[in-house]
Amino acid sequence: MTFAHEITVRFGDIDQARVVYYPVFFHYLHQTLEEWFEKGLGVPYARLVVDENIGLPSVRVETEFRRPLPYGERVRVELRVANVGTRSLTVEYHVVRLSDGETSARARVTTVAIDNDTFRSMPIPTHWRERFERFMNAR
Amino acid sequence: MTFAHEITVRFGDIDQARVVYYPVFFHYLHQTLEEWFEKGLGVPYARLVVDENIGLPSVRVETEFRRPLPYGERVRVELRVANVGTRSLTVEYHVVRLSDGETSARARVTTVAIDNDTFRSMPIPTHWRERFERFMNAR
Amino acid sequence: MTFAHEITVRFGDIDQARVVYYPVFFHYLHQTLEEWFEKGLGVPYARLVVDENIGLPSVRVETEFRRPLPYGERVRVELRVANVGTRSLTVEYHVVRLSDGETSARARVTTVAIDNDTFRSMPIPTHWRERFERFMNAR
Amino acid sequence: MTFAHEITVRFGDIDQARVVYYPVFFHYLHQTLEEWFEKGLGVPYARLVVDENIGLPSVRVETEFRRPLPYGERVRVELRVANVGTRSLTVEYHVVRLSDGETSARARVTTVAIDNDTFRSMPIPTHWRERFERFMNAR
Repeated sequence: MTFAHEITVRFGDIDQARVVYYPVFFHYLHQTLEEWFEKGLGVPYARLVVDENIGLPSVRVETEFRRPLPYGERVRVELRVANVGTRSLTVEYHVVRLSDGETSARARVTTVAIDNDTFRSMPIPTHWRERFERFMNAR
Repeated sequence: MTFAHEITVRFGDIDQARVVYYPVFFHYLHQTLEEWFEKGLGVPYARLVVDENIGLPSVRVETEFRRPLPYGERVRVELRVANVGTRSLTVEYHVVRLSDGETSARARVTTVAIDNDTFRSMPIPTHWRERFERFMNAR
Repeated sequence: MTFAHEITVRFGDIDQARVVYYPVFFHYLHQTLEEWFEKGLGVPYARLVVDENIGLPSVRVETEFRRPLPYGERVRVELRVANVGTRSLTVEYHVVRLSDGETSARARVTTVAIDNDTFRSMPIPTHWRERFERFMNAR
Repeated sequence: MTFAHEITVRFGDIDQARVVYYPVFFHYLHQTLEEWFEKGLGVPYARLVVDENIGLPSVRVETEFRRPLPYGERVRVELRVANVGTRSLTVEYHVVRLSDGETSARARVTTVAIDNDTFRSMPIPTHWRERFERFMNAR
């Protein structure tokens, strides 16, 4: 299973080169993660963070930028789970331009489950692990 | 007394029109407020917020934008206190382009002191009031 | 006629006080303006900016913040046209929390039509004026 | 030779977890790149971009996040050149917390020189190559 979220490039997402400022891509990825929790996993990310007091900070991010995004472009950000470890979750993103179907960027983000109070890593609770694993691809 | 803070327009502050995206101006104003606490009032804003648990959310913002800011421009943001009420603090900002000395923007921001836990307004503590009043102009 | 656009408060929109950072509200307003062009006026804002080379920089912004927005909240941003001058367009925004229907913020933003190359003000073309006027309220 | 730039964590850089939102780290890296051009290489980045019409979009970003940054923290971002190819420049960043000297993040960003009009890659001009190479470490 994969999950996809569509995002419109906004006026203020643009930099001096008239394409999306590269840090904004990571904001797009995080928005997609949040939408995935709500619509893909059926539980708002806020509930993980606020109610269960669990955090998922990114510890490793690898990104390849292929094609720039101009103002007004729309993208589909596809999300799949690459790995669920005892304490870590690795998610892959594929950012596709809707105007021509070309890949704009690919990213692989590893997060670690932590207790939000202590910032110490913790095992991913079973009910979350099961949800995450549904979005792992065979490939 | 006034306080001034210099800011450089960054690559990512720019929008599709190749000038600073107007919401970014408010980020400049807030940075100036934070610098004022640290360097003008002698106490980091973090100490007000984290240690004393007091917030100063903006409740009223009036801004006039006069001249745009291109990439690479530098500005001086001048801050003066316009009013210190029992529970409110009104600060005025003057954003000046360093390349030509022209006014880029003027803003007047009214904040209210609140208890960060309850989000209820509270009287501004005397030790802060005295600090704020030092930056009121006679004019 | 009015126009409304719904926005979800994102993880990164939050500040140290655990509510939406006030400059981010203006990003919400601008997003609503862009959506209004595309879905309310039937022409993407990009077309005004890129194809017709017209800009609509904000010259005056007045905002009242009433209630904070926590993480995960959803808002409806209502837009109405308050005034269409020869060279200016004034838009009013009403930010409503969907969780309780309360007003979070109100804003009034005056923009001026400019030629994007010269940054000089210009009369609003008739085909745009007519579109804008459809969103003026009788009140 | 290395270059270092100090950055203060701002109120609005924080996310719901009360640490710097990870996309903001990339904004810190880009600010450091811009400062490096101006103060390390002696030529504002704006001059490369605007006057020489050369862009340096990021094509590959690898980042490791080690320790979070709370509000009010200050960091030193150290920059060194890892590689100068015919058409590419790879820069490494080390983000160090000033409060305790601990590593907060490490990143490796590969950029490609392009003609800003065509977005096609181009050889890095010799006068830039020479400047870049001065910041390569022996190690």
